Amino acid sequence: MEPPAATSERSRVRREPSRGRYDRETVHAIVDTSLLCHVAFRDGDGVFCIPTVCWREEDHLYIHGSNGSRMLRALLTGQQACVTLTHLDGLVLARAAFNHSMNYRSVVVLGVFEPVPDDRKAASLDRLMDHLAPGRRHEARPGDANELRSTTVLRLALDESSAKVRTGGPNDDEADLALDVWAGVLPLALHALPAVPDAGVARPAPGYLAKWAGT
Amino acid sequence: MEPPAATSERSRVRREPSRGRYDRETVHAIVDTSLLCHVAFRDGDGVFCIPTVCWREEDHLYIHGSNGSRMLRALLTGQQACVTLTHLDGLVLARAAFNHSMNYRSVVVLGVFEPVPDDRKAASLDRLMDHLAPGRRHEARPGDANELRSTTVLRLALDESSAKVRTGGPNDDEADLALDVWAGVLPLALHALPAVPDAGVARPAPGYLAKWAGT
Repeated sequence: MEPPAATSERSRVRREPSRGRYDRETVHAIVDTSLLCHVAFRDGDGVFCIPTVCWREEDHLYIHGSNGSRMLRALLTGQQACVTLTHLDGLVLARAAFNHSMNYRSVVVLGVFEPVPDDRKAASLDRLMDHLAPGRRHEARPGDANELRSTTVLRLALDESSAKVRTGGPNDDEADLALDVWAGVLPLALHALPAVPDAGVARPAPGYLAKWAGT
Repeated sequence: MEPPAATSERSRVRREPSRGRYDRETVHAIVDTSLLCHVAFRDGDGVFCIPTVCWREEDHLYIHGSNGSRMLRALLTGQQACVTLTHLDGLVLARAAFNHSMNYRSVVVLGVFEPVPDDRKAASLDRLMDHLAPGRRHEARPGDANELRSTTVLRLALDESSAKVRTGGPNDDEADLALDVWAGVLPLALHALPAVPDAGVARPAPGYLAKWAGT
């Protein structure tokens, strides 16, 4: 089967091209179930890779942070960056050491970040809260003018993105199938444990925290 | 309290420097409980960030892959790379939107990868198996000459590394503590589900898979 068309030559999945996906639904689903991304960029000291919280609004991926952040300042220079989101879904244990693998869903996005204008920042940070804890923005104290002023919000178009997905069991060589070795998948998932209230909090944990229970 | 001394100026934690750790024990513990790292590097098309399995041997972090891998070929040019490992440990929900945070343990390693010589590859891949599934290398079929020949193993010294760790509950402003908003931590952890045997496997799932049960 012909692999699907990539969004650009440099975003084409080269290793195991049959695992590449470029459709919007697959990319959005991986971003929407992610809490963290890893952002690769350059500054005067070299190449860096920094984890940060992220969310999606329509066809853009968003990140935020303090105005003073080294990463955000570097990204504001208009340089090309790469953002990667990875869900590890399992260890794949084959009969042969060489055929061990992992199940995963990942997205790689290439492009240039742009700043979200000041008058759009509050609405965008509401979307972050909706992503983390839907409904909580109606409960928590909203950001005041100083807090908003000290925060930079950046976005990156999802246009040049590729997803890569591996599912299923081991792909052992025919000759190894008869070996008496346990083979299969150890599924892994990010899992929420019971919420731990802060000192002085009497009300029960809010229902929206259940969003991450089966992550 | 004076923050601890960084391993280099460019590896010093700038944001929230009190969360920075540079001692070997902290760095090793985070690497040893990681299955994946994200590697940032450059090639002719720009900056990339790719997830891959990793393991530690003494004071080096190791990765591997196919000889044809774009990432491995780029890293073999001797360029400076950055490897980041991140454990997400929880959502931190504060009374104020601005004070929301995450609990995490991360390591950032800067440096230049070097190839592991051919005569050391088999032993090194045994260490990978020991990391994933201690003991399994005595059961699975070992790599043959062709498989070893097609695999590149690279290592990066952990000398120039920094860890960053956040634990504990929300840090709300004094003025917000009286707000009637649920605040606290939703702990998150990578969690193993019951192993799924491949077709034709009759023996029970091996005990070493329990290694990741409480990850």
